Amino acid sequence: MKKDVLEIRLSGTGGQGMILAGIILGEAAAIYDDLHALQSQSYGPEARGGASKSEVIISHEDIQYPRVTRPNLLLALSQRACDAYHSDLLEDSFLLVDSIRVKKLPKGAKYKIYKIPFCKIAKEITGREITTNIIALGAVNQVLEAVTFESLEKALLKRVPKGTEEMNLKSLYAGADAIKNYKDK
Amino acid sequence: MKKDVLEIRLSGTGGQGMILAGIILGEAAAIYDDLHALQSQSYGPEARGGASKSEVIISHEDIQYPRVTRPNLLLALSQRACDAYHSDLLEDSFLLVDSIRVKKLPKGAKYKIYKIPFCKIAKEITGREITTNIIALGAVNQVLEAVTFESLEKALLKRVPKGTEEMNLKSLYAGADAIKNYKDK
Repeated sequence: MKKDVLEIRLSGTGGQGMILAGIILGEAAAIYDDLHALQSQSYGPEARGGASKSEVIISHEDIQYPRVTRPNLLLALSQRACDAYHSDLLEDSFLLVDSIRVKKLPKGAKYKIYKIPFCKIAKEITGREITTNIIALGAVNQVLEAVTFESLEKALLKRVPKGTEEMNLKSLYAGADAIKNYKDK
Repeated sequence: MKKDVLEIRLSGTGGQGMILAGIILGEAAAIYDDLHALQSQSYGPEARGGASKSEVIISHEDIQYPRVTRPNLLLALSQRACDAYHSDLLEDSFLLVDSIRVKKLPKGAKYKIYKIPFCKIAKEITGREITTNIIALGAVNQVLEAVTFESLEKALLKRVPKGTEEMNLKSLYAGADAIKNYKDK
């Protein structure tokens, strides 16, 4: 990881697997990449409204303030999540949205926006949307270079159900490829 | 919940499901009991050493300081976890240990200790230790009265795999019963 600290916010609707994606990223960083990590979910009124977020802080040092305040990256898989959480993004940060689910983007944004059809890619790979979170995780890590993909693979394989390993690995790298091949339209 | 704020630390070895137990408790509080909750895992060197912890803060108000510093309760399912995390416990707090896995208890403790064979109860109920975390969760909630059992049931059923609902509900209430019927030896 090049930066000293990375603050990452993964958001969507409940049931889109944002917590699992955050746990895998945190474990990749701390257990396999020898970094410090803190992964958290705070639930307030917006959780009852259907928006869901999961946060990961990754650092070379012990993490003193455990709350994400200036995210380097926001992933938003739903319009409601994008609306609720984009306002903290700074100039040199990144917004990754599901291009099919998030049609209304923040106006006048000075950060880089990636519009990627995560849920469509998931359907192409698995026939269902279930691995959307893992595709998004691959994209997030390709943008930030937060952890090595070797560590991310290990953490992923420890957390996904038996029999789904290959599907999840394909999803992870499909997400990374979506960033590598990204052309802004 | 009677207290204004509860700080709860669930610890064991990696793979004992402490994160899932924390998530279920946090969701029960925030989504079904109309409280605020924050659930987190921080990974440092002890994660690589095999101790694993998951923390939950539950509050009637918005949570300002998101780190557990004075836990009202520590659950320790392994000796290593008990050794690593018991020192923050205050006088009026609770320590719940797996009585088979944790043989060496903190000396001179002024808090209440419950010694319960969580993993043995799990084997009796399911033949395997897989639901030890849910049994412990039932016990934790029985001690603290953190959330209603109605909400805890709902949150549990949303998170466990299909087909395991009954086994998990039985485990939850077996944990609660272990506290209700507890006799200190």
